[in-house]
Amino acid sequence: MSESANRPRAIVVAPDSFKGSLSASEVAAAVADGIRRVWPDASCIAVPMADGGEGTLDACLSAGGERRRVAVHGASGAPLGADLGIVERNGVRTAIVEIAQVVGITEPVGMAVPVGARTTRGVGELLRAALDLGLRDFFIALGGSSTNDGGAGLLVGLGARLLDADGRDVEPAPRDLSRVRAIDLSAFDPRVRDCRVTLMSDVNNPLAGPRGATAIFGPQKGVTASEHAPFDGAIAHFAAIAETGFGSAAAEKPGAGAAGGLGFAAQLVGGEFRSGAEVVADLLQLDAALAGADWALTGEGRSDAQTLLGKTPYVVAERARRAGVPITLLSGAIDRTALPALDGIFSGCFSLVFGPTTLERAIADAAGLLADSAEQLARLRQSAES
Amino acid sequence: MSESANRPRAIVVAPDSFKGSLSASEVAAAVADGIRRVWPDASCIAVPMADGGEGTLDACLSAGGERRRVAVHGASGAPLGADLGIVERNGVRTAIVEIAQVVGITEPVGMAVPVGARTTRGVGELLRAALDLGLRDFFIALGGSSTNDGGAGLLVGLGARLLDADGRDVEPAPRDLSRVRAIDLSAFDPRVRDCRVTLMSDVNNPLAGPRGATAIFGPQKGVTASEHAPFDGAIAHFAAIAETGFGSAAAEKPGAGAAGGLGFAAQLVGGEFRSGAEVVADLLQLDAALAGADWALTGEGRSDAQTLLGKTPYVVAERARRAGVPITLLSGAIDRTALPALDGIFSGCFSLVFGPTTLERAIADAAGLLADSAEQLARLRQSAES
Repeated sequence: MSESANRPRAIVVAPDSFKGSLSASEVAAAVADGIRRVWPDASCIAVPMADGGEGTLDACLSAGGERRRVAVHGASGAPLGADLGIVERNGVRTAIVEIAQVVGITEPVGMAVPVGARTTRGVGELLRAALDLGLRDFFIALGGSSTNDGGAGLLVGLGARLLDADGRDVEPAPRDLSRVRAIDLSAFDPRVRDCRVTLMSDVNNPLAGPRGATAIFGPQKGVTASEHAPFDGAIAHFAAIAETGFGSAAAEKPGAGAAGGLGFAAQLVGGEFRSGAEVVADLLQLDAALAGADWALTGEGRSDAQTLLGKTPYVVAERARRAGVPITLLSGAIDRTALPALDGIFSGCFSLVFGPTTLERAIADAAGLLADSAEQLARLRQSAES
Repeated sequence: MSESANRPRAIVVAPDSFKGSLSASEVAAAVADGIRRVWPDASCIAVPMADGGEGTLDACLSAGGERRRVAVHGASGAPLGADLGIVERNGVRTAIVEIAQVVGITEPVGMAVPVGARTTRGVGELLRAALDLGLRDFFIALGGSSTNDGGAGLLVGLGARLLDADGRDVEPAPRDLSRVRAIDLSAFDPRVRDCRVTLMSDVNNPLAGPRGATAIFGPQKGVTASEHAPFDGAIAHFAAIAETGFGSAAAEKPGAGAAGGLGFAAQLVGGEFRSGAEVVADLLQLDAALAGADWALTGEGRSDAQTLLGKTPYVVAERARRAGVPITLLSGAIDRTALPALDGIFSGCFSLVFGPTTLERAIADAAGLLADSAEQLARLRQSAES
């Protein structure tokens, strides 16, 4: 991929967000700024990436599309405005749903209510709003949830009823699910059956048990040690009833434990998992951007051995490799012990810092550091061009 | 300077020491290690540099030469073994004298005595040992001294006598110099007149006054606020008598204030200043190493705007520029505010760290960090080669 004298050099900048610091778009813009200081005429193609977590909606809409605010209920039941994305994909209008918009773990109102009372009902409401708009193609980003309801809320939001021994409605919340005796699907939205639902996540845990949602992701959502067993049991109990109701099984499927078990309910109604970064890469036509490019950069807040397990920079690097484009990793920090592995896919792995400093300072000045670092990388690369 | 397919690539690694962490040789070895992981066949030419400070002797001897231990007296008067370097230069045996070997500010015994009592007499003793070996060509590295004696000790060590009003010998120490009334040069070593003495330092302060040795460098050597005026006055007083004795003037010359005024006495006896890094670069034949090289790296503990004022990386960069070799800066830390200036001479400026960390951790693992960083820089450069 040598630079031709006859065209401006093309550089693809396809980072993930730097969590707690900059969005993927902000990262890409800073990196492109730095590169243009060296090559003012360069064509810097920003492809802000995401992996299904918070920020996925923004990334998916970065190349165009529509954003609609929908009134739903948050995890706590409080009214909330959530954004629904709509993009055209191969001529099909496709809904982009980021569940963190509804039940996000960084959403303060929802988090004020205990996890035992939080539900994903609002996600179902958001899906129905999309159905009302005629949408049948869904990409659902499952990252960043505050809930652990096994997706019971999703089903209820779509019209299912959970009934107790006396035929009364049961709240789709972890602390109530053990009382469910039956599921009534008579009012379940029939349009769901006509949908194609792609679930974006890199979580492959089952719904319950020692590797399940409660065990692995419960603690960070506030599930206490004493709640662990009852919640895990209640979710498994609800799941068995739901599986009977829908006439299919999903609790053991990989990813059923994603988003506090929303991955279970979403698969029960036909959803299929795909790597979030792969979905976003397809949606934003990363391959087309890479075709004929001279250089690519990616990055994330912190790169380590996990990066190679399908994280965004890995997905971008694999596509760059297939396109024959050298790709460099510029992250907030690099775990040096992972370098031998990272070296296999990146042409250089770098941190944005210029010397010993604190995480807080690096975060506070991340955009400036990124631009300066990208500039220095471009200078070094420039010096090697014959 | 494009890589030829017919010869191994040649890479010059010419760093300064990383003060408080690694010697220049250790830095060069670590960087070369990292580069060879990418290009096992590369010819990595290590040219450990110095600027006249501590480590200059080691750097000068890195390409060969002789090292002799000489018994002298340290700054406090305690016996001390100091190394004298001898290198062949254009067929001439040349003495390399690093005064920090005798009166080093990191030398604990000397530092236990107050600065008012410390002298550079041992430096004179070291020079006489070199004269006894038949050496007449001297390179004297002036950095890193603990003394502030105006170079009175040097003159006494070479045979001068300082006399008080009663004709008695006066110690060549700051606290005693105000009592000097005459200088007796009858026993001053006559061989000094036949010598060529090059002084290595980038200090250009005069001997005394507001920009003099006591004002600028005194405090870091332990000169207290109340000692400042008496010491500065005593040194100026001694200098006037010495200038009369030698029949020449040196107190106002740039560099007279180097090494606590040793720069004065050394110039009085015919020494001439040159940039330490330039001298070392000549001695180690840096230009020959750079001729035809494909890439060069330099570095120092911390790079900032001072770097451009003739510090080692600047000198190396200028020579690389003249040789047409792209040069990259890899330091412990880079002051980002200096980047616009540094960009003018370096093809990329980088720190060895891989993310936020403490100075202590970076210093503790500097060699590993340098090797890993150099490797990543080489990978990026490799990816740009067509």
